[in-house]
Amino acid sequence: MRRSDKLLPALRWMRSYDGQTFSSDLIAAVIVTIMLIPQSLAYALLAGLPAEVGLYASILPLAVYALFGSSSTLSVGPVAIASLMTAAAVGEVSASTGVSATAAAITLAALSGGMLAAFGLLRLGFLANFLSHTVVSAFITASAIIIALSQLRHIFGIQAGGDTIGELLHSIWMHIPQLNFSTLWIGAGVIVFLMLVKSSGVSFLTKLGISRFRAQLLTKVAPVLAVIATIVAVSSLGLDADGVAVVGAIPTGLPMLAFPDFSIALIEALWLPALLISIIGYVESVSVGRTLGGKRQERIDADQELIGLGAANVASAFSGGLPVTGGFSRSVVNFDAGAVTQAASLMTAAFIGVVSLFLTPLLYSLPKATLAATIIVAVIALVDFSVIKKTWRVSKGDTAAVLVTMFITLGFGVEAGVSCGILVSIGLHLYRTSKPHIAEVGLIEGTEHFRNVRRYQVECYPQILTLRVDESLFFANASYLEERIYSAAFDNGDIAHVILMCTAINEIDYTALETLEAINLRLKQQGITLNLSEVKGPVMDMLNRTDFFEHLSGEVYLSQFEAFSAVRGKLGLG
Amino acid sequence: MRRSDKLLPALRWMRSYDGQTFSSDLIAAVIVTIMLIPQSLAYALLAGLPAEVGLYASILPLAVYALFGSSSTLSVGPVAIASLMTAAAVGEVSASTGVSATAAAITLAALSGGMLAAFGLLRLGFLANFLSHTVVSAFITASAIIIALSQLRHIFGIQAGGDTIGELLHSIWMHIPQLNFSTLWIGAGVIVFLMLVKSSGVSFLTKLGISRFRAQLLTKVAPVLAVIATIVAVSSLGLDADGVAVVGAIPTGLPMLAFPDFSIALIEALWLPALLISIIGYVESVSVGRTLGGKRQERIDADQELIGLGAANVASAFSGGLPVTGGFSRSVVNFDAGAVTQAASLMTAAFIGVVSLFLTPLLYSLPKATLAATIIVAVIALVDFSVIKKTWRVSKGDTAAVLVTMFITLGFGVEAGVSCGILVSIGLHLYRTSKPHIAEVGLIEGTEHFRNVRRYQVECYPQILTLRVDESLFFANASYLEERIYSAAFDNGDIAHVILMCTAINEIDYTALETLEAINLRLKQQGITLNLSEVKGPVMDMLNRTDFFEHLSGEVYLSQFEAFSAVRGKLGLG
Repeated sequence: MRRSDKLLPALRWMRSYDGQTFSSDLIAAVIVTIMLIPQSLAYALLAGLPAEVGLYASILPLAVYALFGSSSTLSVGPVAIASLMTAAAVGEVSASTGVSATAAAITLAALSGGMLAAFGLLRLGFLANFLSHTVVSAFITASAIIIALSQLRHIFGIQAGGDTIGELLHSIWMHIPQLNFSTLWIGAGVIVFLMLVKSSGVSFLTKLGISRFRAQLLTKVAPVLAVIATIVAVSSLGLDADGVAVVGAIPTGLPMLAFPDFSIALIEALWLPALLISIIGYVESVSVGRTLGGKRQERIDADQELIGLGAANVASAFSGGLPVTGGFSRSVVNFDAGAVTQAASLMTAAFIGVVSLFLTPLLYSLPKATLAATIIVAVIALVDFSVIKKTWRVSKGDTAAVLVTMFITLGFGVEAGVSCGILVSIGLHLYRTSKPHIAEVGLIEGTEHFRNVRRYQVECYPQILTLRVDESLFFANASYLEERIYSAAFDNGDIAHVILMCTAINEIDYTALETLEAINLRLKQQGITLNLSEVKGPVMDMLNRTDFFEHLSGEVYLSQFEAFSAVRGKLGLG
Repeated sequence: MRRSDKLLPALRWMRSYDGQTFSSDLIAAVIVTIMLIPQSLAYALLAGLPAEVGLYASILPLAVYALFGSSSTLSVGPVAIASLMTAAAVGEVSASTGVSATAAAITLAALSGGMLAAFGLLRLGFLANFLSHTVVSAFITASAIIIALSQLRHIFGIQAGGDTIGELLHSIWMHIPQLNFSTLWIGAGVIVFLMLVKSSGVSFLTKLGISRFRAQLLTKVAPVLAVIATIVAVSSLGLDADGVAVVGAIPTGLPMLAFPDFSIALIEALWLPALLISIIGYVESVSVGRTLGGKRQERIDADQELIGLGAANVASAFSGGLPVTGGFSRSVVNFDAGAVTQAASLMTAAFIGVVSLFLTPLLYSLPKATLAATIIVAVIALVDFSVIKKTWRVSKGDTAAVLVTMFITLGFGVEAGVSCGILVSIGLHLYRTSKPHIAEVGLIEGTEHFRNVRRYQVECYPQILTLRVDESLFFANASYLEERIYSAAFDNGDIAHVILMCTAINEIDYTALETLEAINLRLKQQGITLNLSEVKGPVMDMLNRTDFFEHLSGEVYLSQFEAFSAVRGKLGLG
C-alpha cells in the first residue's frame, strides 16, 4: 500500500474511478439522501436540538469520512443512540451552565472527534474488542426503549420528559390530560403507515410486478412520503392552529464554519459523555463496517476507522452539527442500493447541501409527530430481548451481563448504561483471564512427548512436578502461577524438583520475573529445585540481562525430555 | 475447615491458644505498641486531623481485624499512603461542604470499609491481581516524595501546603521567610537521630554485646525516644513560646461509638476517593500479608482479607478513626518480634486504649516537628527509583507504565496517580491479552501428533488449514480469531478445508459463538468447509443446546488425526 493511501484511503478508489462506478454510486446516493432527510431532522429533534443541526451533521461529516474512513459503504451521519446520548449530556449541561443546547452539542462533537482521532493515532483500535457485542446489544435494546418512550410526547403533543424509564412513564402519565388529538392522529397514522410498509410493503409491490430488489429499495421512500403527506395535511387544514407542533422555520443556506466553544466549564462537563459517545459510536460503526466489508472481502482497519470517525465529528462540530457515527440502517441501504465507493457519500453530502440551500422553507409545516413516528418505527427494530434466551444456553455470565446492562440503562439512563456495559465487559474479561492455563504434564511412555496428566496415560514420579504454562507470564497471572506451584509442591511432601515447561511463554513482565524469583527462593528454602525447559530465545535473552540465573536453584534445559531425564538421573530413577 | 472458622477466622487460633503463644504474642504487642504510638499521631497529622483520630484508629480496627482477617501477623492501623490520600480527599470536601475534616475522614473510612466488605462478599478479591505490583511501587515512590515534601512545613515551622510536587515546592519557597529556627533544630535533630539509628543502630548495639536480633527490635524504640526527648526539651525550655508548634491537648478517654455522617453531598464527594483508598490499601495489605504468610506456609484468602479490612475500616469509622490498612513496617516488626497469632493485635489495641485513657496529657508538649521527622524518615525508605532501571531490562512497557504513574502522581496528586495506575495496569493487561495464542499446526510424519508449523518439520497440504486455538474463546479474542482465519484462508486461494483444533478451548461465550457462526457462513460462501476437532465435553454440550451444528459446513471429529485423515481422504490425498 502506498503511504499516501494510508493517510487518505480515498485515494485508492479515486485513481480507478469510472462512469460505471459513478452511476452505481449515484443511485445509492439518491436513495440514501431520501432516507437521510427525515432521519437528520428526526435525530436533531431526538437530541433536543433545532432541525438544521441535523442537516448540518449530514453534509461535511459525510464528505470528511469519505476521504479518511476505511469502509467503502459505511454511511456516517446522525444516528439514534448517539443522538439520545447527546440529549442526555446536553440537557444537563445546558441547564447548569446556561450555554445553549446547540453550542453544547457542537462542543460535544468536537471533543468526541478529538478523542476518536487521538485514539486512532495512538493505535488503540484494539480496545474496541474489549466491549462485548452481547453487552452492546443489551444496551441498544434498552436505549431503543428509552428513545421510543421519549418520542411518545411528540405523538401525544404533550410536554413530558425524562432520562429513565421510570421518569418517562411517570411524566407521560402526569401530562396525559394535555393530550392533543390532532397530533395523535398524525403520529399514530404515520406509525401505522410505516409499520404496514415494513411488514407488507415488499410483498405488495412485488404483486404489482416490481422486482423484489427494487421493491425493497422503494420501501425506504415511505418516511419521505409520510413527511410530504403530513406537511400537505397540516398546511392545507391549518392544523398548526389546532396545536399540532411543527418544525417551523429552518434557516436557509449552508452551515457557516465556526470555532466550537472550548470553555473549561463546558469541557469539564462534557468530556465523559463525549468519551462514552465515542466508544459506543465507534463500536457500532466498526461492527457495521465489518459486517458489510465481509460481504465483499474488504478489511476494515480499526485504527483508520477511528481517524475517519474522529475527523467526521470534528467536521460536524466546526460546521454546527451534532455527534455523528456510522448508522446501521442507512449503511445497509447504501450497500444494497449498490454503492461501490465513498463517492456515494460525497454525492449524498452534496444533495443534503442542496436541501439546506433551497428546500428548508418547504419543511416549515412538517409536524414533529411525523418525525417522532419515524424514530419510533426505526428504533423498535433495534429491540431484541431474544439475546437473553440465546445467551442463557451458552453462558450464564453473558446473561447476567445482559440483564445488568439493560436494567441499569432503563433505570438510570444511557450514560450509566454505557458505563455499566464497559465495566461489566472488562470485568468479565478480567475474570476469564485471571487464571492462566497451566497443565501438569508427564511423559508418554516410549516417546519424548509430554502431555496433560489428566487426559493422557503418562509416566510421572512423585518427586518430580512438571507444569506447562500455556501463556505469557504477566502481573495478572503471576500470582496464580505462584499459588498453583506452592499448592502442588507443598501439599505433596515428596516433591524434590519442579520443572516449568515454558513452551508457550512469549514474554515475561517485571512483576512475573519478581514472582519467579520469589518462587525460586521459597522452593529453595524447602529443598526443592526450580528448573526451566524449552525457554524461547527472546525470553532467554531477557532473563540473561537480569541476575535471575545466578540465583536459580535448578537448571535450564533445552528440551523438556532433557530436563526430565536429567532430573530423573539426579534422583537415581533413570 | 469448619463453617464457623470461615466466618470468624480467629476461632482457629483461639481453640488451641496456650501460655507459650501468649508470651510470644505479648512481646510482639509491646514492641508494636511502642512503634504505633508515634505513628498513629504522625499519620493523623499527615491526614490533617487531630492527633486523637490516629489513636482511635489504632484501637477498635486492630481488634476487629484480629477477629475477621486471614493473616496471623498483619498489623492494621493508620499508614502513610492512606493518610496522604485521606488528606487529599478530606481537604477538598471540607472546603466545599463545610463539614469538618474529622467528620469527612470518618465518613471516608465508613465508605471504604463498606466497599471492601462488599467486594469480599461478592468474591472480587481476584481483581487485585490486575493492579500491577510494578505500577503500585511506582505510585508508592511518588507518594512518598509528596509525603516527605508535605511534612517539611512542620520541620520548618511554616504554613506551606499543596497536593502536587509543584504546589508543594512553590508554597515552601514562598513561606521560607517565616522559618522558625527552634522548630527546625528539633525537626532536623530528630531526622538525623533516626537516620543514624537506622544506618548504624544495629551495629552499635551489637558491639555493646546485645544479640543482633534484639538489637534490631531495640532500634524500633528510637521514635519513642525522640518523642520523649523532645517533649522534655519543649516543656523544660518553654520552646512552645518560641513558636514551636505542639500537638496540644488530646482528649482523655476511649473513643465514643457514633454513627458517621452519611449525607448525600458527603457521599457524592467521597465515594471515588474511598474507592481509590480501598484499592490501594487492599493491594498493599494483601502483598504484605502474602510476603509474611509465605515465610510460615500460611495462605492468605483474598476475599476474607477484603472482609477483614472492610470490617476494620467500618470499626474505625464508628469509633471516630480515619481509614486504616495493613502497614508494611509494623507488620514486619510484629512478625520479627515473634507474633504467632492475632492475639498480639488484640493486646496492641488494649495498650493503645490504655494510652488514650491515661497518657494523652503527657503528649501535650510533643512538637509536630518530631512527628513530621518520623514520617519523613519512614517514607524515605519507600522511595525506590531502581525499579525504572530494573524494568527497562525486562519490559519497556512496564518502564513506560512506571514513568507515567510517577509523573502523574507527582504532577497531579495521589488521586490522579492511583486512577492513572489502575488505568495503565488494566490497559497493559488488555493489550497483552488482546491476541490469543493461535498456532498453525501440521502432522509430524509417522505419528499422530500435530505441532506448530513454524517450529517443527511437519506434513501440510495447501488445501488444508489447521489452526490450534490455545485459549478459551471470548468476545475479547473472537474477532482476532476471525481475522486470523480469513487472512489465512483467503490470502491463499487453495484452501478448501479449515480445521479448528479445540484442545484448549474450555469455554465459548455468546459473542464467540456468534463469531464462529459468522466464520462458518463466510467460509461456506467461498466453498470452504469449517471442521472442529478435539472439542471438550462441556463445550460440546453447550454447542448442542444451540443450532450451531445444523449450519456447520464441515464435521466435528473426536481427534485431530481423525479430522486430518478424513479431510485428506475427501481431497483424494489420503
